[in-house]
Amino acid sequence: MKHLLSAKDLSHDEAVMTLDTAEAMAATQRHAVKKLPTLRGKTVVNLFFEDSTRTRLSFEAAAKRLSADVINFSAKGSSVSKGESLKDTAQTIMAMGADAVVVRHSADGAAHLLAHAGWIDVPVLNAGDGKHQHPTQALLDAMTLRRWYAPGTGGADGSPAPRGRDLEGAKVVIVGDVLHSRVARSNVDLLTTLGAGVTLVAPPTLLPIGMEGWPCEVSYDLDETVASVQPDAVMMLRVQRERMSAAGGGYFPSPAEYSRAYGLDSARRAAMPEHAIVMHPGPMNRGLEITAEAADDPRSRIIEQVGNGVSVRMAALYLLLADEGTQL
Amino acid sequence: MKHLLSAKDLSHDEAVMTLDTAEAMAATQRHAVKKLPTLRGKTVVNLFFEDSTRTRLSFEAAAKRLSADVINFSAKGSSVSKGESLKDTAQTIMAMGADAVVVRHSADGAAHLLAHAGWIDVPVLNAGDGKHQHPTQALLDAMTLRRWYAPGTGGADGSPAPRGRDLEGAKVVIVGDVLHSRVARSNVDLLTTLGAGVTLVAPPTLLPIGMEGWPCEVSYDLDETVASVQPDAVMMLRVQRERMSAAGGGYFPSPAEYSRAYGLDSARRAAMPEHAIVMHPGPMNRGLEITAEAADDPRSRIIEQVGNGVSVRMAALYLLLADEGTQL
Amino acid sequence: MKHLLSAKDLSHDEAVMTLDTAEAMAATQRHAVKKLPTLRGKTVVNLFFEDSTRTRLSFEAAAKRLSADVINFSAKGSSVSKGESLKDTAQTIMAMGADAVVVRHSADGAAHLLAHAGWIDVPVLNAGDGKHQHPTQALLDAMTLRRWYAPGTGGADGSPAPRGRDLEGAKVVIVGDVLHSRVARSNVDLLTTLGAGVTLVAPPTLLPIGMEGWPCEVSYDLDETVASVQPDAVMMLRVQRERMSAAGGGYFPSPAEYSRAYGLDSARRAAMPEHAIVMHPGPMNRGLEITAEAADDPRSRIIEQVGNGVSVRMAALYLLLADEGTQL
Repeated sequence: MKHLLSAKDLSHDEAVMTLDTAEAMAATQRHAVKKLPTLRGKTVVNLFFEDSTRTRLSFEAAAKRLSADVINFSAKGSSVSKGESLKDTAQTIMAMGADAVVVRHSADGAAHLLAHAGWIDVPVLNAGDGKHQHPTQALLDAMTLRRWYAPGTGGADGSPAPRGRDLEGAKVVIVGDVLHSRVARSNVDLLTTLGAGVTLVAPPTLLPIGMEGWPCEVSYDLDETVASVQPDAVMMLRVQRERMSAAGGGYFPSPAEYSRAYGLDSARRAAMPEHAIVMHPGPMNRGLEITAEAADDPRSRIIEQVGNGVSVRMAALYLLLADEGTQL
Repeated sequence: MKHLLSAKDLSHDEAVMTLDTAEAMAATQRHAVKKLPTLRGKTVVNLFFEDSTRTRLSFEAAAKRLSADVINFSAKGSSVSKGESLKDTAQTIMAMGADAVVVRHSADGAAHLLAHAGWIDVPVLNAGDGKHQHPTQALLDAMTLRRWYAPGTGGADGSPAPRGRDLEGAKVVIVGDVLHSRVARSNVDLLTTLGAGVTLVAPPTLLPIGMEGWPCEVSYDLDETVASVQPDAVMMLRVQRERMSAAGGGYFPSPAEYSRAYGLDSARRAAMPEHAIVMHPGPMNRGLEITAEAADDPRSRIIEQVGNGVSVRMAALYLLLADEGTQL
Repeated sequence: MKHLLSAKDLSHDEAVMTLDTAEAMAATQRHAVKKLPTLRGKTVVNLFFEDSTRTRLSFEAAAKRLSADVINFSAKGSSVSKGESLKDTAQTIMAMGADAVVVRHSADGAAHLLAHAGWIDVPVLNAGDGKHQHPTQALLDAMTLRRWYAPGTGGADGSPAPRGRDLEGAKVVIVGDVLHSRVARSNVDLLTTLGAGVTLVAPPTLLPIGMEGWPCEVSYDLDETVASVQPDAVMMLRVQRERMSAAGGGYFPSPAEYSRAYGLDSARRAAMPEHAIVMHPGPMNRGLEITAEAADDPRSRIIEQVGNGVSVRMAALYLLLADEGTQL
C-alpha cells in the first residue's frame, strides 16, 4: 500500500491488517506516556482546501503521538484552491520536505490526482474528497463495529477485537443524505469488503442516480428496514443544514419532515435489537438527524468513534510511513 | 486541586504553593535549554471559543516548555459556539486523547460547566470565561506583586520572592471598567486571599450592582484614592473600545472624559508612592487608559507580567497534570 | 551577524559562509531522520503581520528540523497591526521567552525597527518588509544559482556547490514589476555582492524613480536583453494581479500586454542560452508572467528554489541562534 485514497482500494486482508494495527495503536494510548518514537524526524503535512477542524485535529494528534512533526497548510480561500495550481501547491509542499500529505478537498478525485499525477512521490492520505471517499472514516467505523459485533451472537462487549477478525455477517443500516455523502460511499465499500451487509436508507431525492452496481440494499423507509433487517448497527449521517430549505420543497425535505421520517429518536432506538449500536460521524445536529436521548443512549458509540479515529490514523501513518524494520 | 477554574477556589496555602512553583518554573527559564521533560507524552488542548492571541500563546509556550504536545482547537464562529454542543465538543476532545483542556469562552461559568458536567475527566484550566474569572491572570499579577512588595518596607527589588511569602499588608488599586472585567474579579479574590487590601476605582456606571459582599473598597475618584490609600501597586484595566461611544452619553464616558478622570499619566504616576508599581493585563490602549509615558515608566511592570504569565501557567499545568512523583 | 534584516548587510564572505552552511543543512535533509538537535529548547516566533503561507511554513519547517519550538503569532487584522503598538507586541513576544523573531510586515523598514528600537534583544530575521527586503529569498536564489552556474563554463549540473564558491561572472536577468518588488531589490544587492551581473527588465512605469545608485543595468525590452546579455539565469517576478486593471491604462499594462512583452514562454526560453535556468519566487501565475510550458521546462528550477528556501532558513537560524560551540 503506497497511499490511502479510497476504502475501495483496500483488500480484505489489507483492511483487517490495518484494523489490527489500529488496535495495537489504541493499546499504546492507555500507557502513561502516549508518545511513540516511530516517526521521529518525519514531517506530515495537513493540506486542507476545506475546513474540517475535527478531521485535521485527529490527524494532527495521530502524527504527534508517533513523534512526527506536523505542518498545517490551510489552503482555503487562497489562490491555490483553483484546479491547475494544485500541482504547484503539491510540489511546493514536497520541496519543503514533506514525508506524507494528508489532503482534504471539495473536488471528487483530488486525492487520487495528487497521488498519481507524478507531482509528488510520498504517501497521500485522503481525508475526504468531495462526495467521493473518506477512507479513514470508514476504517474508524469498522474498528468500532469490530469491537461491538461478534459473529453469531447478540453483540460483543466493546473490548479490543481479536487479531484477524472481520465483519462477516454483520448487518449495518446507514441513514440519511447518501447522495452527498463520502462517508456512506466509503462505508459501503469497506464494510462489504469485510463481509458485512449494508442497507442504505434515504429519501428518494437524496440517493444517487445509477446505484445498480453498489453492493448494498437500498430503502426509503427506515422503520420498515429496521424491522426487517434487525441491524447490528445503525449509522446516522450528518445533515448539511445549508442544503435544506426550511419550507421543504425542492429535493430536500424540511427539517421537521426529515426528523419525522429519518431521524433517530428513542422510539426508533427501542425498535432496534437491544445489542445494536448507534453511530454518527459527527458533528451531530442534535434534534435533527438524532435526538439528544438517542445520542446519549448507552449503546451510542459516537464518542468512541472519535477515539478510534486517532487510532486508525496512527495505523495508516505508521503503515505508509515507517521505515522498513521499525518496531511498533 | 483537580481543576483551575476560579481564583476564589484557591486557599491561601494553595495560592502560595502555586506561586512558589511558578518561581521554580521561572528559574528554569533562565537556563540555556529551557525545555523540561515533565509533561512529555501529554496532550494539552487549547479550546478557544473567543479569540485571545496572547493568552493562547502564553499557555502554548508554557505547555511546550514542559514538553507537552499542544493542539489548538479554535471554535470561534463554528457551530460549536452554541450552548448545547459544548458537550459534544468536550467529549470529542477527550476522545482524541486530551490530558488537559484550557478553555476560553464568552459565557460566564463555561469553564465550571466543562469541568463539572461529567463530560470529561481531565483537568480544566479556565483561560477566561465571560465577565467571571481569569485565574491565571490573577496568579501572574500576584507573582509580580510578590516580587516588588515586601511587608513593612518601601517595596522590594523585583528578585524572586522567598518561598512561602504572601501579600499581607499590600495595598492595590484597580482602575477601570470593573463591570465587565474578569481580571478585576479574579484579582479581588486572589489578592485578598493572600492578605492584600484592594480598592476598585471606576465610574459609577461601570461598577456591578450588588457589590456588598465583595471584600474590597470601592471609589469613584482615582486621585483621592491614590492620595488616601498610598498604594503599593496600581493596576489599570483595559478599556474595550467597542463599549465606548465617541460622544459619551449612555453609561460609558467618552474616551476624553475617561482619560481625564481614570487614565494614568505622568502626573498621577508622580502622585503615587515612589516604590509603587504600575500593572496592566495588556494589550494596552496607549493614550486611553494609560499614556505612553506611564506605560514606559521605570516602575511599570507590564512586560514582566507577560513573562510571569508563562511561569504561572507552567506551574498550573505541572500541578494539575504531572504524574505522582514527577520531579520538577 | 546579530540579525538578518537585509541582503545589503551581508558582506561577500558572510554571504558565502551562509550559503556553505545552507549546503551543509541540505546534506542533512537527505538522511532518513532529518531532525537535528541543534536548537532544542529554543523558541522561534513567527510574527506575521501579512499573510504568507509559503514563507511562514518554510521558516516553520526549518525551525522544526533544528528541533526548535515554533510559535505562530498571526497579527493580521488585529489591533497590533498599527504602528505604535509594534513595540508592545514585540515586548510581549520577548517576555514569553522568544529566542528569535521571524517578522513579515507590509511596511518598509519594519524588521529594522524591530531589531534596533531597543525593544528586544534576540535575533530578528526579516521575512519580507513592504517593498524593501526579503533576504532569505535572495539567499535561496543565490544557493540555486551556485548549483547551476560554474565560472567560465556553460553551466554546472546542479550538484551542491563547492565550499567558498561565489557567483563571479554570472549574468542574471530579473523581469517584472521591479517597482513593488522586495525580491528584486534583495537579489540585486546579494547577487552583485557575490560577483554576478544583474539586469532588471520592466515596463518603464514599473521601475522605481531614482535608480542611479543601483549596481545593475536596466532595460525595457526583454527580447533585446536576452539576446545581448546571454544570461545564465532568468528570474521572473510574480505579478500581483490586484495591481493590474483588465483594461490596461494607468501605469500597469493589461494582462495580455504584459504577457506579450514580459512573459516567459517557450519561444523566449528557446532564445536563452541552452544552459540558462528559469527561476520564480512563487506562487506562479501560470499564463501571465510565465506559461505552463516554461514553468515546467527541464531547466526550470522553481521547485528546487523552494527546497533551498528551507536550507537557507535553517542556516540563518543556526548561525544566529546556536550557542557557541554547537556542532552542526
